[in-house]
Amino acid sequence: MKEDSRIAFSRLAGVIELRRQAAPDTSYVARLMTRGRTKIAQKVGEEAVETVVAATLNDRAAIISESADLMFHLMVLWADAGVTIDDVADELTRREGTSGIEEKRNRTSG
Amino acid sequence: MKEDSRIAFSRLAGVIELRRQAAPDTSYVARLMTRGRTKIAQKVGEEAVETVVAATLNDRAAIISESADLMFHLMVLWADAGVTIDDVADELTRREGTSGIEEKRNRTSG
Amino acid sequence: MKEDSRIAFSRLAGVIELRRQAAPDTSYVARLMTRGRTKIAQKVGEEAVETVVAATLNDRAAIISESADLMFHLMVLWADAGVTIDDVADELTRREGTSGIEEKRNRTSG
Amino acid sequence: MKEDSRIAFSRLAGVIELRRQAAPDTSYVARLMTRGRTKIAQKVGEEAVETVVAATLNDRAAIISESADLMFHLMVLWADAGVTIDDVADELTRREGTSGIEEKRNRTSG
Repeated sequence: MKEDSRIAFSRLAGVIELRRQAAPDTSYVARLMTRGRTKIAQKVGEEAVETVVAATLNDRAAIISESADLMFHLMVLWADAGVTIDDVADELTRREGTSGIEEKRNRTSG
Repeated sequence: MKEDSRIAFSRLAGVIELRRQAAPDTSYVARLMTRGRTKIAQKVGEEAVETVVAATLNDRAAIISESADLMFHLMVLWADAGVTIDDVADELTRREGTSGIEEKRNRTSG
Repeated sequence: MKEDSRIAFSRLAGVIELRRQAAPDTSYVARLMTRGRTKIAQKVGEEAVETVVAATLNDRAAIISESADLMFHLMVLWADAGVTIDDVADELTRREGTSGIEEKRNRTSG
Repeated sequence: MKEDSRIAFSRLAGVIELRRQAAPDTSYVARLMTRGRTKIAQKVGEEAVETVVAATLNDRAAIISESADLMFHLMVLWADAGVTIDDVADELTRREGTSGIEEKRNRTSG
C-alpha cells in the first residue's frame, strides 16, 4: 500500500467533513446531507447496485470507479451518523481475531 | 484517526489475500471465492441492502456492523478482481481535486 | 396471457394471506412476518440483487426464477403493509395515462 | 381484486411492448431499452432500493409508489429478456404446490 494511499481514506473523511459544512449550492456533500438520511441511504444502495453490476460484468475499470462512488457515499453516511473509519476498522479488526468460517457463523446467526 | 486503525484497512486486505489461499473448508474467504464472482457480487449487494436498512433505521451500532460486513465483502471482490485499495484510493483522490457539485455532474453524466 | 396465469398473481396474494395466519414453524410466510418488517425489507432487497445479477448475466431461466422470488417477497411486503395488488395496479394505471417521458419526469422530480 | 385491476398487469405488459417500438425521444421505455440491459438492470436495482427504504420507514404511500416503479422496470426487463408474466406466474404457481418451509428450503439450497 502506497504511503499516499494509506492515508487517502482518512483524508477523504476529512474532506467530506469540510464539504458538509459548506453551502448546499456549492457542495455536493452538503446538498446531499440537507436532503436527509433517507436520500443518503438511497445513494449508498444505488452505488452498491452499480458495483454489483460492474462485478458481474467483470469490468475492472468499472469496479474501481463504482467502488470509489460507493466508498464516497458510505463515508458520507458515516459522517452523517457520527461514525468514524476507526469505528468500522475496529469492528473489522475484532472479527479478524476469529477464524474465517467461525466468524461468518457468528455474523450470520440470529 | 488512530495509528492502529489507519492501517486496519490495509491489514485486512492482506488477511483476505492470505485466507484466499487457505483450504475452502477452513476459510470463509476461500470458500466464497470458490463459489465464483457472481456469488461475491451477490454478497456485496446483500450487505449493502442491510447497510441501507440500518441507515434508514438510524441504528448506529447496526450501521457500524453492516458497514464492516460490506467493507469486508467489497475487499473480497477487490482481491478477486485484482483491484487494490490503492486503485480505489487513487480514484477517490483524483475526484477530490474537482469541486463537489462539478465532480458529481461529471460522475452522473452519460 | 393465459386464463390460469391471469389470476395467478391474485391467487398468490390469497395464498400468502392464508400462510400468514399459519403457525410460524410450518409456514415460511408466517415465520418471515414474525421476524418483522425489517427482515421482510431485507429479503426484498436480496432477491432484487439476485434479479439484477441474473439480468446482467442475461440468464433467462435465472431471470424467471429470481423474478418469481422477488415477486413473492414483494407480495409478502404488501400483505404486511396492508397494500393490495389493486393499489399497485391503480398506481401503474394512473401513470399509464401520461406519456412515457413526461411520466418519468414526474416520477423522478423532487 | 377488482375486474379492472385484475388485467392491469397484463395491460401494462402490452403498453410496455408498444412503447418499446416507439421512437427513443418520445418513449421512456424505448429510450431505456436503447441504453441496454445493464442500464435496465441498474434501474430495477435502484427502484428496489427505494422500495426497501419505503418498507423500512413503513411509509404506505411510498411503498405503493415505489412498488409500482419497481414493477414497471421489472416488466421492462421481462420484455427485454423475452420473459412473459405467464413465465413468472407459472414459476410462482409451481412453487405454490410445495409447502412454505419446504419450498423455501428448495429455493435457498445450492
